[in-house]
Amino acid sequence: MGIDPGTATTGYGLIKVPDDILGREFDYGIELITFGNIYTPKERLMEERLMLIHDKLNHIIEQYQPDQMVLEMLFFGANTKTAITVGQARGVIMLSAAKFAVPIHDYTGPQVKLMVAGSGRADKDQVHEAVRRWLGKNGRKIKKLKLSQKGGHLDDATDALAIAICHVLKLAAK
Amino acid sequence: MGIDPGTATTGYGLIKVPDDILGREFDYGIELITFGNIYTPKERLMEERLMLIHDKLNHIIEQYQPDQMVLEMLFFGANTKTAITVGQARGVIMLSAAKFAVPIHDYTGPQVKLMVAGSGRADKDQVHEAVRRWLGKNGRKIKKLKLSQKGGHLDDATDALAIAICHVLKLAAK
Repeated sequence: MGIDPGTATTGYGLIKVPDDILGREFDYGIELITFGNIYTPKERLMEERLMLIHDKLNHIIEQYQPDQMVLEMLFFGANTKTAITVGQARGVIMLSAAKFAVPIHDYTGPQVKLMVAGSGRADKDQVHEAVRRWLGKNGRKIKKLKLSQKGGHLDDATDALAIAICHVLKLAAK
Repeated sequence: MGIDPGTATTGYGLIKVPDDILGREFDYGIELITFGNIYTPKERLMEERLMLIHDKLNHIIEQYQPDQMVLEMLFFGANTKTAITVGQARGVIMLSAAKFAVPIHDYTGPQVKLMVAGSGRADKDQVHEAVRRWLGKNGRKIKKLKLSQKGGHLDDATDALAIAICHVLKLAAK
């Protein structure tokens, strides 16, 4: 389960891989299970928004019972306000993982871009195109959904899938 | 209830004031209820430490049923890593508040120092001395406890009391 943490939008994406991915090189057999966004209304208090994220995530974890959780880690240079806000969202997300004893892994944005799209400086479109490729015929679903939901509302969910895929590629490379 | 959030140590302090503090100028009748620290072991995973903070705080809130929660807010200039870590602790603390519908207020360190000790640049000792003064004869308890627990382990708890007192002074000044 990959997660792109944020207060307004927390993207999540669940994938499944065969047990024997170690040493595989091209075909990892990545299967798309589900993906989506947890939105929280701006007009609500911050603590209520955090509770919404935590509760919805608990439901998703209960429903899909992921083996591992992979989070995007903010890297140095972000401003204090952003770091605090993302940190707060991370806190309640990590609490969900702890409740269900799901181990957590962390990758920075550039690490995800490098592993998934082949360059630490890949732009959003390149990363999303790469996500679709990794997911094979299932990846096309994302493109269709994006086209039908104008405005690219699935950006965070697709980022979450990229984070999950990054972890798979890292595991396979070990 | 004042809280000084941190992953290793989260200080908390509970005080009680009369309903009619508005417009009071010197004697606010601040009563010390309790104070202490929530410690989490370094060797545990971050998500487990966050769960410890969250669970212990839930117990304290259930036991004392505070009307308001006051948090220290990190101000600009802190580095990203600290901001993320403090943010994570803040997230699970705010979640505790949301669970019990306790409203949250925020003050920065300099605001607390200014309100409680009379100067935004007061040092730790000056702030702690001021906390003891505001608490009257109850304040002496803190000094005794500090002396009996070498190493100043109650620093965070005393900071938490300072944060709670700051909120009282702010309310009285309105």
